[in-house]
Amino acid sequence: MTQRHVINASVSPKGSLETLSQREVQQLSEAGSGSTYTLFRQCALAILNTGAHVDNAKTILEAYKDFEIRIHQQDRGVRLELLNAPADAFVDGEMIASTREMLFSALRDIVYTENELDALSIDLSTSQGISDYVFHLLRNARTLRPGVEPKIVVCWGGHSINTEEYKYTKKVGHELGLRSLDICTGCGPGVMKGPMKGATIAHAKQRIHGGRYLGLTEPGIIAAEAPNPIVNELVILPDIEKRLEAFVRVGHGIIIFPGGAGTAEEFLYLLGILMHPDNEGLPFPVVLTGPKHAAPYLEQLDAFVSATLGEAAKKHYEIIIDDPAEVARKMTQGLKEVKQFRRERNDAFHFNWLLKIDERFQRPFDPTHENMANLKLHRDQPAHELAANLRRAFSGIVAGNVKDNGIRLIEEHGPYQIRGDAAILQPLDLLLKAFVAQHRMKLPGGAAYVPCYQVVA
Amino acid sequence: MTQRHVINASVSPKGSLETLSQREVQQLSEAGSGSTYTLFRQCALAILNTGAHVDNAKTILEAYKDFEIRIHQQDRGVRLELLNAPADAFVDGEMIASTREMLFSALRDIVYTENELDALSIDLSTSQGISDYVFHLLRNARTLRPGVEPKIVVCWGGHSINTEEYKYTKKVGHELGLRSLDICTGCGPGVMKGPMKGATIAHAKQRIHGGRYLGLTEPGIIAAEAPNPIVNELVILPDIEKRLEAFVRVGHGIIIFPGGAGTAEEFLYLLGILMHPDNEGLPFPVVLTGPKHAAPYLEQLDAFVSATLGEAAKKHYEIIIDDPAEVARKMTQGLKEVKQFRRERNDAFHFNWLLKIDERFQRPFDPTHENMANLKLHRDQPAHELAANLRRAFSGIVAGNVKDNGIRLIEEHGPYQIRGDAAILQPLDLLLKAFVAQHRMKLPGGAAYVPCYQVVA
Amino acid sequence: MTQRHVINASVSPKGSLETLSQREVQQLSEAGSGSTYTLFRQCALAILNTGAHVDNAKTILEAYKDFEIRIHQQDRGVRLELLNAPADAFVDGEMIASTREMLFSALRDIVYTENELDALSIDLSTSQGISDYVFHLLRNARTLRPGVEPKIVVCWGGHSINTEEYKYTKKVGHELGLRSLDICTGCGPGVMKGPMKGATIAHAKQRIHGGRYLGLTEPGIIAAEAPNPIVNELVILPDIEKRLEAFVRVGHGIIIFPGGAGTAEEFLYLLGILMHPDNEGLPFPVVLTGPKHAAPYLEQLDAFVSATLGEAAKKHYEIIIDDPAEVARKMTQGLKEVKQFRRERNDAFHFNWLLKIDERFQRPFDPTHENMANLKLHRDQPAHELAANLRRAFSGIVAGNVKDNGIRLIEEHGPYQIRGDAAILQPLDLLLKAFVAQHRMKLPGGAAYVPCYQVVA
Amino acid sequence: MTQRHVINASVSPKGSLETLSQREVQQLSEAGSGSTYTLFRQCALAILNTGAHVDNAKTILEAYKDFEIRIHQQDRGVRLELLNAPADAFVDGEMIASTREMLFSALRDIVYTENELDALSIDLSTSQGISDYVFHLLRNARTLRPGVEPKIVVCWGGHSINTEEYKYTKKVGHELGLRSLDICTGCGPGVMKGPMKGATIAHAKQRIHGGRYLGLTEPGIIAAEAPNPIVNELVILPDIEKRLEAFVRVGHGIIIFPGGAGTAEEFLYLLGILMHPDNEGLPFPVVLTGPKHAAPYLEQLDAFVSATLGEAAKKHYEIIIDDPAEVARKMTQGLKEVKQFRRERNDAFHFNWLLKIDERFQRPFDPTHENMANLKLHRDQPAHELAANLRRAFSGIVAGNVKDNGIRLIEEHGPYQIRGDAAILQPLDLLLKAFVAQHRMKLPGGAAYVPCYQVVA
Repeated sequence: MTQRHVINASVSPKGSLETLSQREVQQLSEAGSGSTYTLFRQCALAILNTGAHVDNAKTILEAYKDFEIRIHQQDRGVRLELLNAPADAFVDGEMIASTREMLFSALRDIVYTENELDALSIDLSTSQGISDYVFHLLRNARTLRPGVEPKIVVCWGGHSINTEEYKYTKKVGHELGLRSLDICTGCGPGVMKGPMKGATIAHAKQRIHGGRYLGLTEPGIIAAEAPNPIVNELVILPDIEKRLEAFVRVGHGIIIFPGGAGTAEEFLYLLGILMHPDNEGLPFPVVLTGPKHAAPYLEQLDAFVSATLGEAAKKHYEIIIDDPAEVARKMTQGLKEVKQFRRERNDAFHFNWLLKIDERFQRPFDPTHENMANLKLHRDQPAHELAANLRRAFSGIVAGNVKDNGIRLIEEHGPYQIRGDAAILQPLDLLLKAFVAQHRMKLPGGAAYVPCYQVVA
Repeated sequence: MTQRHVINASVSPKGSLETLSQREVQQLSEAGSGSTYTLFRQCALAILNTGAHVDNAKTILEAYKDFEIRIHQQDRGVRLELLNAPADAFVDGEMIASTREMLFSALRDIVYTENELDALSIDLSTSQGISDYVFHLLRNARTLRPGVEPKIVVCWGGHSINTEEYKYTKKVGHELGLRSLDICTGCGPGVMKGPMKGATIAHAKQRIHGGRYLGLTEPGIIAAEAPNPIVNELVILPDIEKRLEAFVRVGHGIIIFPGGAGTAEEFLYLLGILMHPDNEGLPFPVVLTGPKHAAPYLEQLDAFVSATLGEAAKKHYEIIIDDPAEVARKMTQGLKEVKQFRRERNDAFHFNWLLKIDERFQRPFDPTHENMANLKLHRDQPAHELAANLRRAFSGIVAGNVKDNGIRLIEEHGPYQIRGDAAILQPLDLLLKAFVAQHRMKLPGGAAYVPCYQVVA
Repeated sequence: MTQRHVINASVSPKGSLETLSQREVQQLSEAGSGSTYTLFRQCALAILNTGAHVDNAKTILEAYKDFEIRIHQQDRGVRLELLNAPADAFVDGEMIASTREMLFSALRDIVYTENELDALSIDLSTSQGISDYVFHLLRNARTLRPGVEPKIVVCWGGHSINTEEYKYTKKVGHELGLRSLDICTGCGPGVMKGPMKGATIAHAKQRIHGGRYLGLTEPGIIAAEAPNPIVNELVILPDIEKRLEAFVRVGHGIIIFPGGAGTAEEFLYLLGILMHPDNEGLPFPVVLTGPKHAAPYLEQLDAFVSATLGEAAKKHYEIIIDDPAEVARKMTQGLKEVKQFRRERNDAFHFNWLLKIDERFQRPFDPTHENMANLKLHRDQPAHELAANLRRAFSGIVAGNVKDNGIRLIEEHGPYQIRGDAAILQPLDLLLKAFVAQHRMKLPGGAAYVPCYQVVA
Repeated sequence: MTQRHVINASVSPKGSLETLSQREVQQLSEAGSGSTYTLFRQCALAILNTGAHVDNAKTILEAYKDFEIRIHQQDRGVRLELLNAPADAFVDGEMIASTREMLFSALRDIVYTENELDALSIDLSTSQGISDYVFHLLRNARTLRPGVEPKIVVCWGGHSINTEEYKYTKKVGHELGLRSLDICTGCGPGVMKGPMKGATIAHAKQRIHGGRYLGLTEPGIIAAEAPNPIVNELVILPDIEKRLEAFVRVGHGIIIFPGGAGTAEEFLYLLGILMHPDNEGLPFPVVLTGPKHAAPYLEQLDAFVSATLGEAAKKHYEIIIDDPAEVARKMTQGLKEVKQFRRERNDAFHFNWLLKIDERFQRPFDPTHENMANLKLHRDQPAHELAANLRRAFSGIVAGNVKDNGIRLIEEHGPYQIRGDAAILQPLDLLLKAFVAQHRMKLPGGAAYVPCYQVVA
């Protein structure tokens, strides 16, 4: 990264439908000052940096300080002018088509979020309002396609997994693709890329031309997890909670591959929702899987869930070790049930309206030391509420590990103190220590891991 | 119409991208009460009545009093349930595809207008705000397609012309279509249908598959001028002024065929805009044309314009009698200049941002007796302002002839008194009398025409 | 025609798949000498003359004596260079796309017929061999599309009918198109054009993009009945018998509109086949139809069939007067039976293999005076054989009326002497006289009709 | 292979245009007896065996002795019924789409070869006749697409290379795909698969939907090198010489990766053609490339060519070590020259008519001991003739190594005796020994290599 290759270029959308009003162009053009511009510049830089494997948003932003992006309205539509852009996004001076497409997707979502969506009379103080917000954003991005049967499989897991695990995700993606299923991920590298790559080859074999590789991201994470170029539908949600809601409302089933604290957080988010009494009986296939050597990891996660949320949690997911075809078959079977269920209830195939998402999961958690210390980590509450609190604990740990404000807080006040029942804290401690031992707690720069928390029994 | 054939049916969009949120479905479902429902029902009825030749919205609405339309959210998207729908929209019990498409276009525009657009922070008190509004509505309807060269030809003229004139509009449409041009009209019968029909055959001969037949309408007129089924893009603007603005901003050139007072109103609207000093030098091809026997009509219109707006007005249009190929060649030539101009100024091909439309043309004119009496019809003002006032005079006459509230006002207070300079009023009087003599002042029911105005020299 | 407008041009196929080997180009290039060239030039001229309404091939060929067409092999494929081509085929100097397409279709069929097909080890001395020949030619022209349900409706009738009849064919085509049916005709004007035009508009209304307008012709007739530009699949069969076989093997149903002796010939051809004992039970919907004023014509034809072939013939067709929608409904119903039948017998939807066509109908009839005099026109034979002989009688009359060699024979030897039983000859005489009275015996130049035959009781 | 999984299935083509005449179906149906059936069965089995990595055709044929394939003509077209088919071609009981497509491609080519092509009046005793034959077969397979710019890159090399080499071919394919180039190979595993896989991912990134992965094979090799499922255009040429001619006439440039004696044979075939005096000046980009560790191999090949054919041979190819992007850039540059050249000479983009292929390269070489002993391997002849003879030497060695009849001959008569000048034989001996040392002489079963030849100085 010491020797940056940069390039200046000018790109127009191809086959895209994006048009902007003069007002919107003006708003985006206030280079340097406007927050809309800053947001777009940051996302654009991440998209252009698509090949690079950098864990840290800051690094990228600093490496391309002089990167600029200008928007012009022209005879044939919008044109973007790029100055000092990362050269990796270009082949012999021409921008890779997928990168170009993603730039205009980012433009689309940011213009919509900043203009139309914020102006909509949506009441964001209600749970229903937040879901409506997510719906409108996805609809504007043309992600919601009526008339299509349920086949979007969400793949969650780490962005920096080992080679064997990465190859395994490709194999699972291949088996999903052979069965005509589409892939949705967080759109970065690792688990977010492997299944898409495998599915691309499988879709080619099955002569499927409109295979979807849906990437859902948000401005806070996009720089650290730059969209991989297989993604052919990119949507930028405004924050992490809306991104998670988008996953569970557009995805018809979820596969969880090995990952770190972030993956555990997502798993707890999902369990918390599925265990909500209102979602009793609502089919939602979830499979935890990995190659043979990842078995201990998956078993540990399973044990942790049993120990904390109880055996009842186990009916919501299945563990399959080292059998990609079986994973794909289970998912196919699960999607049939989803289809049947939605048909009977007249729920949309393209948006899971019936899924109840508690407000607890829709609101951001602020990982202050106080909030972390006050988390209710005991059995004296319904399992889905405990799941919500455990999710917050992991959310805080992720922040303390890799996020700017989290790191600063830890530097200032020392590690978080996590309190609660031993019956909860002990399994938690075990799991976190296992993550460390398995090198799943990745840090910027690759330094040895110093825990940002203390479990106080 | 005494013997109505009705049918009950259930339709889903095919290939359409429409999805609705639960909130939107709910809003549309408040049958009987909600204004959104009433609006949608009225437009739907007009669309279903597509074959019928009825001049009067009231007649249709009364003929199908028991018509109902219900919206359902389903697994595969939205479904419409129709009760007591006009049977003409169906072939052997199945709805004609274009009709189905238009139903969902109406749904799209009404949902957007009533939900998103009204909530947008657009300042409708400014001229720019109104243009932005039109832009957003058209963009949402996917009418604005970047990357396409200028080729939308707007055809204006009467909806109840004679057979020879109708055949002539088909021939002109055929010649336009042979030259790969698209057609945009007010989407009803007569001049609004002929050019589309001719172009359809020509596009087939030229193997053009994506030929566009764009129909722009508004709720107040759609029932009287039901969309003809050739229209393959229907947009419902909220009122007459926004509809006119849409015509001149998406159309790249305009052909005016014979018509009545409404056509004269549109012609004056156009001249008023083109003569605005800010539009000096902006290319906008306008051709007045008709078959041989319509020559007197066109010459009269021409004479009226010269007499009132002066010779300067004549450079903005050309008159071509009985030569469809020449009309098409002129239009093709004019569109080249439009393309060149927009390219040089970086103006969008798909939306004529540079065209200045004075607020006078963007605001509705309320045809009270007082307003009609106070119209400034004298030479002591810039020509484009006089054009604006003349346009209002015709607007009032159209209202007094055929619109509900206009007719009521005339019944109450007697004919409008139109005052002004003799140099303006005399040509106006001549033109109006010629319209009457040529049976171009059509009335509901076909009664003998009794003028709704008096020219007071 | 005294003032010919000609044009020189160079055209390449667009989207077509035609490629030629060097040998094929060479063969076609032997301008002036090669028979392949002569054949292609003649067909090309007819195609270019598409707009003109000339009944006589000779007239066209003489009007464009200096027309030349040269074939070049180029980097991007084949290119045709045209010298002194009829200007009507061009719009502002550019060839109409359908004309261009048809030129390359003619090239395709002639190259295939002259090269590959003649070399195939097909035994043209057998009935099966002739059918195989037709199959191969149609397959090479990509006319045979597997996987498509039966929906090709053949329309037969006169090429120079009156305006009311022409409008009626458009209406029938419109009703067929609304029901998603495709049209197949002899590809000239009149009945060969009207249904295609009506279906084009209806297909546009139904948003059907791949509507087929199939034109089957042969070199002997193409100049007199130039392909209308709606035809989007043109196939040139080598002679009249193979063309007729193509009609009944690719068409799934047949509508017969008013026409002259040629139409009667086709009707008898069809009845002769359908009445063959081997075709007992094979569904093949046939409708005779026309506007109200054509009722006498249709009734006469019906009476003639009853009188000669007997009541048994009547079950093979239905007569519908002035009811386009009913014609389309009957055809739709009939096609369902065709589909059911072929499915049960595993016969191809795209080629009617099961239809028995007697060799009598596959071999050309040479209308010498001797052959005409020896026709067996009596009841003492199976009805389908009588039909074959009656068909030959009409074939001779058509030749004596309009074909070069027929006219010459009549000039030399006087009118044909047609002999046979009075029970056959009397109805025949009545029918022919009615054709004359109804001006259905059209002659080149429009001279008064002098019969080319004498009925000798 | 001891435990075979088999499956019975019935498949129809999807989107394919294949239709068969009754005669053709009959010919193919003579199961057990007809040679056409035997040929089709053998190809079908190879295609169905697509996943398996078996070097030996015999093994496959014996493993599925009870495999049968039956052809049915049906309402919707052709249907294939498979009995005891390899289960690997199916996913959850349904045949993989690419496999299905290839089955029908094989059907198409075999029917054409056995029916139409053999009947064509092509004189196979002339060089021109053989080229015409290849042209007709490729045209019938719709491989020749007019209007497309030169972008087919042929990749040659071994089918059983090591992992590093395989990964390298994927990277080269990826770089070619990023530059919108298409891939053509011999359609098996190894070098025949890697570039296609890389290009598939790159085409996805570049949003290229019609990327071509063309596989050319022949019945003698298809079983040993089963088509990989990325191939989306499969053509079965009748013999090895016509397959090689197809490569150099449809390919616009060639990349040679590491391989064994077969690859050397292909390289000499290519050099022999390019060095022919008639091809002087004809651009044809050829690149030899491999990863770093393959450098010795490439250098040895290079040295062998210099030593035998002289320095003049070197201008016909370029060697690039371990630089996929550079390979793609060179190829892109070379294709520009090909395009320019063909445009200037009016040669087809889709078929290299201008390339002179000497009859020596079009006729099969029969590797008897006598023919091998009499090869003229001395400098006393033009270089392109020496290349032809060297190619024969390699052809014989390949046969002696892996082909049925070659192996039998060696068993009977002992190793081939190869004679000639030391200046030729010494480099040849060196090269062959290097192949053995590098394990590039692969044998069925993996036994230690015992040379099938003796170099007799």
